Amino acid sequence: MSLKFGVVGTGAIGADHIRRITNTLSGGEVVAVTDINQEVAAKVVKEYQINATVHPDDKSLIADPNVEVVLVASPGFVHEQTVIAALEAGKYVFCEKPLATTAEGCKRIADAEMKAGKKLVQVGFMRRYDRGYMKLKEAIDNNFIGDPLMIHCAHRNPTVADDYSTDMAIHDTLIHEIDVIHWLVNEEYKSVQITFPKKTKSALSHLKDPQVVVMETTGGVVITAEIFVNCRYGYDIQCEIVGTDGIIKLPENASINFRKNATLGTNILMDWKDRFIEAYDIELQDFIDAIKKTGAPTGPTSWDGYVAAITADAAVRAQESGKKEIINLERKPKFYQ
Amino acid sequence: MSLKFGVVGTGAIGADHIRRITNTLSGGEVVAVTDINQEVAAKVVKEYQINATVHPDDKSLIADPNVEVVLVASPGFVHEQTVIAALEAGKYVFCEKPLATTAEGCKRIADAEMKAGKKLVQVGFMRRYDRGYMKLKEAIDNNFIGDPLMIHCAHRNPTVADDYSTDMAIHDTLIHEIDVIHWLVNEEYKSVQITFPKKTKSALSHLKDPQVVVMETTGGVVITAEIFVNCRYGYDIQCEIVGTDGIIKLPENASINFRKNATLGTNILMDWKDRFIEAYDIELQDFIDAIKKTGAPTGPTSWDGYVAAITADAAVRAQESGKKEIINLERKPKFYQ
Amino acid sequence: MSLKFGVVGTGAIGADHIRRITNTLSGGEVVAVTDINQEVAAKVVKEYQINATVHPDDKSLIADPNVEVVLVASPGFVHEQTVIAALEAGKYVFCEKPLATTAEGCKRIADAEMKAGKKLVQVGFMRRYDRGYMKLKEAIDNNFIGDPLMIHCAHRNPTVADDYSTDMAIHDTLIHEIDVIHWLVNEEYKSVQITFPKKTKSALSHLKDPQVVVMETTGGVVITAEIFVNCRYGYDIQCEIVGTDGIIKLPENASINFRKNATLGTNILMDWKDRFIEAYDIELQDFIDAIKKTGAPTGPTSWDGYVAAITADAAVRAQESGKKEIINLERKPKFYQ
Amino acid sequence: MSLKFGVVGTGAIGADHIRRITNTLSGGEVVAVTDINQEVAAKVVKEYQINATVHPDDKSLIADPNVEVVLVASPGFVHEQTVIAALEAGKYVFCEKPLATTAEGCKRIADAEMKAGKKLVQVGFMRRYDRGYMKLKEAIDNNFIGDPLMIHCAHRNPTVADDYSTDMAIHDTLIHEIDVIHWLVNEEYKSVQITFPKKTKSALSHLKDPQVVVMETTGGVVITAEIFVNCRYGYDIQCEIVGTDGIIKLPENASINFRKNATLGTNILMDWKDRFIEAYDIELQDFIDAIKKTGAPTGPTSWDGYVAAITADAAVRAQESGKKEIINLERKPKFYQ
Repeated sequence: MSLKFGVVGTGAIGADHIRRITNTLSGGEVVAVTDINQEVAAKVVKEYQINATVHPDDKSLIADPNVEVVLVASPGFVHEQTVIAALEAGKYVFCEKPLATTAEGCKRIADAEMKAGKKLVQVGFMRRYDRGYMKLKEAIDNNFIGDPLMIHCAHRNPTVADDYSTDMAIHDTLIHEIDVIHWLVNEEYKSVQITFPKKTKSALSHLKDPQVVVMETTGGVVITAEIFVNCRYGYDIQCEIVGTDGIIKLPENASINFRKNATLGTNILMDWKDRFIEAYDIELQDFIDAIKKTGAPTGPTSWDGYVAAITADAAVRAQESGKKEIINLERKPKFYQ
Repeated sequence: MSLKFGVVGTGAIGADHIRRITNTLSGGEVVAVTDINQEVAAKVVKEYQINATVHPDDKSLIADPNVEVVLVASPGFVHEQTVIAALEAGKYVFCEKPLATTAEGCKRIADAEMKAGKKLVQVGFMRRYDRGYMKLKEAIDNNFIGDPLMIHCAHRNPTVADDYSTDMAIHDTLIHEIDVIHWLVNEEYKSVQITFPKKTKSALSHLKDPQVVVMETTGGVVITAEIFVNCRYGYDIQCEIVGTDGIIKLPENASINFRKNATLGTNILMDWKDRFIEAYDIELQDFIDAIKKTGAPTGPTSWDGYVAAITADAAVRAQESGKKEIINLERKPKFYQ
Repeated sequence: MSLKFGVVGTGAIGADHIRRITNTLSGGEVVAVTDINQEVAAKVVKEYQINATVHPDDKSLIADPNVEVVLVASPGFVHEQTVIAALEAGKYVFCEKPLATTAEGCKRIADAEMKAGKKLVQVGFMRRYDRGYMKLKEAIDNNFIGDPLMIHCAHRNPTVADDYSTDMAIHDTLIHEIDVIHWLVNEEYKSVQITFPKKTKSALSHLKDPQVVVMETTGGVVITAEIFVNCRYGYDIQCEIVGTDGIIKLPENASINFRKNATLGTNILMDWKDRFIEAYDIELQDFIDAIKKTGAPTGPTSWDGYVAAITADAAVRAQESGKKEIINLERKPKFYQ
Repeated sequence: MSLKFGVVGTGAIGADHIRRITNTLSGGEVVAVTDINQEVAAKVVKEYQINATVHPDDKSLIADPNVEVVLVASPGFVHEQTVIAALEAGKYVFCEKPLATTAEGCKRIADAEMKAGKKLVQVGFMRRYDRGYMKLKEAIDNNFIGDPLMIHCAHRNPTVADDYSTDMAIHDTLIHEIDVIHWLVNEEYKSVQITFPKKTKSALSHLKDPQVVVMETTGGVVITAEIFVNCRYGYDIQCEIVGTDGIIKLPENASINFRKNATLGTNILMDWKDRFIEAYDIELQDFIDAIKKTGAPTGPTSWDGYVAAITADAAVRAQESGKKEIINLERKPKFYQ
C-alpha cells in the first residue's frame, strides 16, 4: 500500500517533491495538495497527472482522511502552525527546513509531538542522506578515526541572489553544517564565534562575504567552517574530520577525469541542486520505508530542528558581537534520546 | 498505470529485479513469475509480498494477457526460445545478457523482432547506465576530446569461482567492455588479438589469467584491454579514452578519503554488485520510462546483442590461435540504425 | 671561487649543513667550524674530510679572515650574540631559526644589520624554498586566484619528544606557518586567537594537543591553522589559499600510487626530514648563488625573524588568555622594504 | 678532488651538462671540450666561465691527460668511434643515448669495454634516476606487488618537430620505455608488435601517430605502450605495473591543486625538459659519486645500450610488418651480470 501524502506549498520545492514521489520513488503517492495560490496547486496536479484533491488551505488538507503524511514545503514563517495542526491531528509530518523560524517555535513543535506521544516529524535536512556524509558517519561510528577532535568545513556557492543577506549565511547556508555535524559527532554545540575576512569584490555592498566560523561542541570538538557564497568557481561542500587515529574527508564530486589543455582535472558542480539531488531521493524514500516498516520516521527530529535553530540564533549574535557566543540548550527530553 | 512484468527465472538476478521493481523503482509491477523450480518462484512471490501468478513455464507466462513485459533472467542457453516466443506474442522483452549463446541465435532474435515490426527488446548491458560511462559518452558526443583514437581498459576481479574458465573471461567478463565501448564510439569491431602474460599464482591450474586483449574498430580505434580476474586487491573497472584533443577517464569509486597509518587512501570495492548497483536501478527505470513515454525501449538492442556475441566468438578463437582474428559482421539493418 | 663558510654549532643541523655544502651543493666550502664540544667539531671535520679549522669559539671563528659566511646552527639562546658579532665583523650570516629567542633580540639584530649598511643575514625558514610553496607564491603573485581572503593550514606530526611543551607548538611548529604565510600574502599579522579542542589520548599529560589557531593579517586575510603533533598517521603539512577567484593548495607528497588490499592509496611521510630535505638544499644553494651574483642574500631577512618572533609571542599569550591577542609590530624600516 | 670531464659535443645537451657540472652538482669539473664547431665550443667555455681546454677533435680530447671522463654529447652517428677510442684509452665514458646507432655498434662497444677489463661506460638513460621510477623499482624489489605481470605505459608529447618520422617514435621516444621497463622488471624482451590506430589530425602527413605497442619479456611480462607525440594537451609519461598482489603507478606531476572556473585541477607539463630536469641532475651526480666511491659507474651499461638498440630495431621491423617480431639477443656476458 502506498503512503498517502498531502503537500502544503506547491512552489519549486513542493513541486519537486511531488515529482519525486510520483515518478522516482517507490511506495508513496500524492493524494492532496494546497497552496496559497490555488492555480499553482491545480497546475502542478495536472502537470504530474496525479489524482490529488486541491485543498483551499492547510487545515482542510490536514483534515482530509485520505492524507497520512503532511509534507510541508510552504514559506518558513508558516511552518509552525501547519506542523502543530498536523500533529494535533496525529498525522506524520515531513517538514522542509526550517522547522520553525524561531527556537521557541521549534520547541513548541517538539512539545506538541511529545504530547502526541509518538515520533511523527522528520525535518528535511537532506545532507544526512548524502552518500558521502553517510560514509563519514559510518566511519566515525565504526571508530575508524578514533575520537573526532576537529572538523574543517567549507560551504561555497558560486554566487547568491541579490537579496541574500549576511544573516542568511547562517539561517540558509551554515544551517546545513550545523545539523549534519551535530549528527556526525552526536553532540550539541556550546559556543560559536565568527570572524569576517576581507570582503570579496564579488559580493554586493550589503553582504559580508566570506565568513569564518569557529564552533565548539559540548564534548570539545572544535569546528572551523568557511562560508563563502560568492566564490565564483563552483558549488563546493567540503568536510574533513580529524580524529585521534586518522582523518576522513568527503569525496569530491565523482565526475570523469580529463587531460586537456595542460590540465589534469575534474568538473566542479556549479548548481547546488546537482550536488544533493540523490540525497533528496534517498531521504524521502527512507522516510516512506521507515514509516511503512516501523511506524515512525528515523531521520532528523523536531529536537534536531530546535538544536539547529538555537545554534543559528547564537551564530547571528556572534556575527554582530565579534565575540564567542555561548549556546544554552534545554536538556534533551528522553523522548528524543 | 504500472508496466506489468512477467519474470522468467527467479534465481539471484531474477529475484533482484523483482525486488528492484517492487521496492525501488517507480511505474513497474511484477504480475507473473516462472522458474524451472516452482518452489523457488513461489518463495520469491511470498518474500516480496507481490501479487503475481506463478506460471509453470515461460510459454504460459508469455500467454498471460496481464503480462506486458517478459523479463528474461533464466540461464543463458534458454534465452533464445523465450525471447523469440515473447516476440511472436508481440510482448516487450528485457533480457539479461547474453541475448543468446550464439551469434546465430542473436541473429534469429533480431529477425524475429524485425518481423514483429517494432523495437521490443532491450538487452541487460547495464554499464551504459553507469553514471561514469554516461559522462564519458556525453563528453565524446560533445566532441570534448575530438576523435577517439585509443581506449585503455581494465576489468579486474579480486577472485572468481572455481568453475570460471579461460573462455568465460570473454563471454562473462570482456563482454561488458565489448558492448560499452562499441556504444561509446558508435563503431563495430574488425579484429581482436589476445596475448597471455605470465599466469598469476592466484589462478587455478585450468585458468589462464590475466589476459591482454587488443581490438580494432571499423573506424580505426585501437582498444587495449586487461582482463585480470584474480587480481586480489579489488573489483576495479578502468576505462580511459584518448582522443585527438584530450583524454577522459572513468572516475574512481567515490568513497571518502582517509589519512591513516601513513596512507592517504580511498576504499576500492571488493564486490562487483556494489559497483553497478545504481546502474541496474537506472537501467530498468529507464526501460520502464521509455516504454511508457515512447512505446519502445531505447537501450541496447538485439543488434547490440548480436555484435557482442560475434565479437566474443572471435575473441575466443583469438585465445586459441594467438593471432589477430577478423570479425565479419553482417551489414546492420536499417531497422537498427 | 667557492663561498667560504664557518659553521657555529656542529650538532645534528650543523653537521647536516656541512654535508650539504660539501657533497651536494655547488659553489660553497666549509673552512672553519666551532662547537661548545670541540671533539664533536673535530669529528665532523674528519667525517666529511673537509679542510677546516676547528675554532675554540664563535668569536675566534668570526675573526678568521678565511670565513666569509657565518652559519649559525647552535642552540637558539646563543644565536643573538653570534649573529651580532658576525654583523659587527661585516660578515654574511645564515642563521637557523629562531633568529633570536625574543622579539627584542631580533630587533637588536636588525638594528646591527642596518648599522652595517647592507643586507647580510638570512634566516633559515626553509619552507619558502619548498617547490609546493614556491608554486603557491608564484600563483598568488600572478593573480591566479585574485586577492587571498582565507588560508587553511594544518601542521601535523605523528608524535613528538616527551619534552615538547604546549608553547613549543608555537615556537617550534606554528613558527613555520607564521613565516611562510606572511611571505605568501606579503602582509603582517594583527591578531591571533587559540582554541583547544578535546585533547587527544596520544598526548602526554603536560601537553595540550591539538590546537586551533585563528590569525588575522593587517590586510584582512583570516588564517585557520590546525596544530596536531600527535596525529599518529604521518607528518602532514597542508596549506590551502582561498582567493576571490579561486583556490590553490599544496600538492600531496608525490609518491607512487598503489592499489592493494582494497585500498587506492599513496604513502604519507612519517618523518619531517623527508618532507623538506629538498627545500634545505635549494635554500642554501640559493643563498650561495645570491651572494655570488648580487652580493647579498635574498631570502628571509632579520625583519622576517622579528615578525615571526613577535607574532609567536602573541600566540603564546593567546594560549593562556583564550582571547584574541593583538600584535603590535613596529613600523617596517625602509631598509627592509 | 673533482672528477675531470672532457665534453665531446657542446650543442644543447652538451652545454646543459657543462652547466650542470659547473653550477649545480658537487664533485665534478669540466676541464676540456670539443665540438665540430670550434666557435661554439669556445663560446660555451666563456659563458660558463670554466677553465677548460678547447680541443680540435675527440681524439685530442681523449688524449688530454687531464681528462678522466669523456662525456659524449655529439650526434648519435659518431658516438661509437668516440666511445671506443675513450675505452681504448682506459677512460670513463658518460654517453648520451643512443650508445651507438646500431645494435652491432653497441656490441662492439661492449666488447671494447670487456677488453678494457672494467666497467667504464654509463649510458644516459636518465629515467632510472627519476624519483617516481626509482620508487616503482624499489616497490618491485621489495615485492610490494608480488610478481609483475603487465605494464601499461603512455608516452605523450604535445607536438614534435616537422622532421620527426614514424621510426623516430621508436628510436627517440619508445627507447626510454624500452630501457626503463627492462630495468624495472630485470628482464629482456622476446617480442614486439605494433598496431596503428586511426591517425590523429594533428600529425603531419608523413607521420603515423599514435602507435600502440605490445611487448613481451623473456619472463612473460606483457607491456602495452601508447606512443602519441601529437597529443596536444601536454607532455605526459604514464607507467602502471600490475603484479600478482597489487598495482603501482607513477605519480602525476606534483603541481599545486586548484579550484577555478568549475574545475578541480592540476597543471600538466608542456615541456619534456621540465619533466626530467631533476633526473638529469641526480643521474650525473650519481655517476660522479659512484666513480669517486667505487671506481666504476653503476648506471645503465653498454649492455643496456645493446638491449635497447636490438629491441628498437625489432620494433621498427614490427612497424613495417604489422606482425609480432621476435627479438634475438645474444647471451648476456658474465661481465654485465
